[in-house]
Amino acid sequence: MFEKNLTIGYLLDFYGELLSDRRRELMSLYYNEDYSLAEIADEVGISRQGVRDAIKRGEEELCNLEEKLGLAARFAELQALSDRLEAILASPDANGISPALRETLADLCERLK
Amino acid sequence: MFEKNLTIGYLLDFYGELLSDRRRELMSLYYNEDYSLAEIADEVGISRQGVRDAIKRGEEELCNLEEKLGLAARFAELQALSDRLEAILASPDANGISPALRETLADLCERLK
Repeated sequence: MFEKNLTIGYLLDFYGELLSDRRRELMSLYYNEDYSLAEIADEVGISRQGVRDAIKRGEEELCNLEEKLGLAARFAELQALSDRLEAILASPDANGISPALRETLADLCERLK
Repeated sequence: MFEKNLTIGYLLDFYGELLSDRRRELMSLYYNEDYSLAEIADEVGISRQGVRDAIKRGEEELCNLEEKLGLAARFAELQALSDRLEAILASPDANGISPALRETLADLCERLK
């Protein structure tokens, strides 16, 4: 139930600002800094179980937000398209496209990073 | 302080699911259906002032969400780029671009609608 995975880290980037400071801090240590539960417990001075519970509640909060809004999934799809676009732009397929188009596409890819 | 504007309607599309059902309903009548405060009051059986207060609180909630997350602004920028892209794709500038690129771009524009 408690695997680290890309999805929660991604949701944390997206919606983290809606969590309480404390909860965001604990989740960031776990998902972004790759601390173990025991290391976080040491760092912030609460029990390992306390850390575990807080992170679990944070996960539920993030999943609930995404279930309602679906914005992270929408962005992820756009980012996948942007990756394809960058690959095409770097290939011979992109020879001869106009400067206006190339500029717009580069701008789009940049904003989807 | 209480002008209808695109921004609140846009934020409502984005974050409306995080409002309570009641508040979202009142805001949707006001911003999407263009009801007046008096008409909404009639429709839902509360005072005009009650409607006004609820919508004001909803506006604050939406603005607060956007201030924290900034996702609506990010999408709006992408949509503006997508509009430019569609214009370019419909122009002679786009002659000769590869089918792979055209397909990826069409997909991207579609997802940004």
